[in-house]
Amino acid sequence: TQTLDHFNFNSMGNGTFNQRYLITDQYWEKGFGPIFFYTGNEGNIWEFALNSGFITELAAQQRALVIFAEHRYYGKSLPFEKDSFNIPQVSLLTVEQALADYAIMITELKQQLGATDCPVIVFGGSYGGMLSVYMRIKYPNIVAGALAASAPILSTAGLGDSREFFRDVTSDFESVSSDCTDAVRGAFHQLKELAQSQEYHHIQSAFALCKPLSSAQDIHQLNGFLRNAFTLMAMLDYPYSTHFIGNMPANPVKVKKDVELLSIMDHPLHPLHVTLDTQKRIVYNATGVLTCFDLYSLYLECADPTGCGLGFDSLAWDYQACTEIELCYESNNVTDMFPPMPFTEEDRRLYCSKRWGVVPRPGWLNIQFWGDALSTASNIIFSNGDLDPWANGGVRTSLSDSLIALNISGGAHHLDLRGSNEADPVSVISARKTEADLIALWVKMERTRLQKFV
Amino acid sequence: TQTLDHFNFNSMGNGTFNQRYLITDQYWEKGFGPIFFYTGNEGNIWEFALNSGFITELAAQQRALVIFAEHRYYGKSLPFEKDSFNIPQVSLLTVEQALADYAIMITELKQQLGATDCPVIVFGGSYGGMLSVYMRIKYPNIVAGALAASAPILSTAGLGDSREFFRDVTSDFESVSSDCTDAVRGAFHQLKELAQSQEYHHIQSAFALCKPLSSAQDIHQLNGFLRNAFTLMAMLDYPYSTHFIGNMPANPVKVKKDVELLSIMDHPLHPLHVTLDTQKRIVYNATGVLTCFDLYSLYLECADPTGCGLGFDSLAWDYQACTEIELCYESNNVTDMFPPMPFTEEDRRLYCSKRWGVVPRPGWLNIQFWGDALSTASNIIFSNGDLDPWANGGVRTSLSDSLIALNISGGAHHLDLRGSNEADPVSVISARKTEADLIALWVKMERTRLQKFV
Repeated sequence: TQTLDHFNFNSMGNGTFNQRYLITDQYWEKGFGPIFFYTGNEGNIWEFALNSGFITELAAQQRALVIFAEHRYYGKSLPFEKDSFNIPQVSLLTVEQALADYAIMITELKQQLGATDCPVIVFGGSYGGMLSVYMRIKYPNIVAGALAASAPILSTAGLGDSREFFRDVTSDFESVSSDCTDAVRGAFHQLKELAQSQEYHHIQSAFALCKPLSSAQDIHQLNGFLRNAFTLMAMLDYPYSTHFIGNMPANPVKVKKDVELLSIMDHPLHPLHVTLDTQKRIVYNATGVLTCFDLYSLYLECADPTGCGLGFDSLAWDYQACTEIELCYESNNVTDMFPPMPFTEEDRRLYCSKRWGVVPRPGWLNIQFWGDALSTASNIIFSNGDLDPWANGGVRTSLSDSLIALNISGGAHHLDLRGSNEADPVSVISARKTEADLIALWVKMERTRLQKFV
Repeated sequence: TQTLDHFNFNSMGNGTFNQRYLITDQYWEKGFGPIFFYTGNEGNIWEFALNSGFITELAAQQRALVIFAEHRYYGKSLPFEKDSFNIPQVSLLTVEQALADYAIMITELKQQLGATDCPVIVFGGSYGGMLSVYMRIKYPNIVAGALAASAPILSTAGLGDSREFFRDVTSDFESVSSDCTDAVRGAFHQLKELAQSQEYHHIQSAFALCKPLSSAQDIHQLNGFLRNAFTLMAMLDYPYSTHFIGNMPANPVKVKKDVELLSIMDHPLHPLHVTLDTQKRIVYNATGVLTCFDLYSLYLECADPTGCGLGFDSLAWDYQACTEIELCYESNNVTDMFPPMPFTEEDRRLYCSKRWGVVPRPGWLNIQFWGDALSTASNIIFSNGDLDPWANGGVRTSLSDSLIALNISGGAHHLDLRGSNEADPVSVISARKTEADLIALWVKMERTRLQKFV
């Protein structure tokens, strides 16, 4: 049972809602071992629990209690059930509320489980990693350290270059083969020419679209749909097949490149066409059932230009991207291989005000969560894989002895949080070892602190 | 222009309100000197500015810009004017909103004034001192250090002994003369006996009350009114006459003792009667005009058992004491000289739910602002005077090299924030010197940090 509104005592009748968490004490040295707490992010918490095997492996080693907490407004933790995404009900979906949820959940569970002297380490990947950082900096009284995997805490606070994200997606393909990026750039160019001469029927059949195209808006939607497929391949470019966001083959970027190079002579649109296979896997979690693509139901344009999925979770994420999380990333066909698709603060403002009745507050996240002014913080690991387009939006160099940046060569989006696999590169094995050592150290330090106050 | 609701993007039409601040660049080395920012507390900001002369004296020394910011819902910073204390309008009065106000105000003023590289030091007394601590721990990206004078950050978070406050008020009088506390205790006993035998007319005339007494509730109100007068004398026991909360003579505790001892043989109620003089000074800011006391209009029983004043400011403070700030202090006539007046969490819950439709959340402040688990914080001075009954609710021993507790022997409530005075004890002169040195050091360190990021 969680407080609905931590920051307003008169709001909506002082209500509560049911927040889901997963817990296992299988490895816990009861009352003594540490607590490993995953700060859930934008989805069903099972999705993250099933793809973060490292945490339970580490719990087995360090005899920890493991808790995966589901973020409010995602998965089954909907405060107002099916009405959660109405206005104003949706308005209790903020980063601050989510952090307060976790602070209270940890405090209460420690009481209930006889774990008041057990050090707490938070873990998270991507937005969940951002939340882990925020927990450590805003609640160090509760959290002794954080492993923030692939957490773009800088770019989402409006710091850095808005062109970086899609440039880095492009780089992934470029690093496999520069022919590949040339082919993709050429194919988008070809698509643009076909669109300009209104050869919509040709485009529809080339991409197996269910419905006829008829406008520039439709082409824009198709471009977004295709760009999104490349983005996901780069993010999920793991060295073995995964079932995280849909089914993905091992090394999808490389697979794509091989298919492309084989077929590039057949058809100039082919480099794009191949990405459809990825979309099938992602959207339907299966291949072969889908006979055509319905652009508008498969891809939702939203305040996150890296792509919104479908369902309630994507509504929630869209709201967050419209309020606190800043994702004004653009592609421009010069620094990246995608069509020019700007997304300015003004575009964001217009969209968000129309969609959710909110005005985004650029700069707020930077004020609230310190941006790059982290020097007073401690005990945070910022891990990033160099295949991950989110990496350069995060902290890439260590800021102090206890603010450690780890680079995972050949790593995709929070690869280090996944369980061990035979195909793991040496880099991630080494990163996990460093993480385990630092966490053990923080746990030890926190025990000293807690005992001092007893 | 300030954001109305920092934590809800759909709330009340994304509104704004006018927040007042006082500013002087009289001493500022423009664009380089530090910014001294007073985190305003529960009242008109002028009241604090006029009674915190140390800050401007220090600004003259260290060539600082001085800003005094008024807390939302106090003074002229009423978000909804005369409707500010209706439900739900009052609900945007929280500590978190106030801190976010200051974070945004500092950030924007730095931009406007060409002061982005100027280190910021926050100052505050009492609840304002709590806010200074909170600013440093929650926004160290914005605030380089804090001087928290007489800030009861522990007792207001529910830590410590609920009997301590009135015991410490009693100790002040005890330290001047144990005859004095005996006399007061005896007088309250006498009052109780008169009340039990329903000699209301006698009591009315002894205390010059405007209206007849008729119930135990009236006696309870009278006891609260009298206890409050002693509390204020202890808090404001400065070595020279002041005009902070009404007019107060120099050394009011000692003055009271002298008058009492001279007159104690005349009338056993006299030790209480003398406090009325204090009440006159405080409430009417003058003596002689008041011919009788109207108990219910002069003293408001509220969620703060140390006394609520009158007017909008006291409404606001009552709301804060009903939500986040925990003030369950009791007197019991055993560990203190006052009548037994319990104020339990349950009393608080009943009162607050009836008065404001809110349920207090004991423990919340402790979770949100770290309680005594401050070891990861830095650059905070916790100064306290040993005459101040609030002192023992704060941090009395240093926690690290940069979390410094200063004790001011013979000091009342945030004496160190006041301007220099010939009557100052050596202790406060020495404390101000230490404060000045530490602040100069923090400013220097922050310059280094800011330059590193330029």
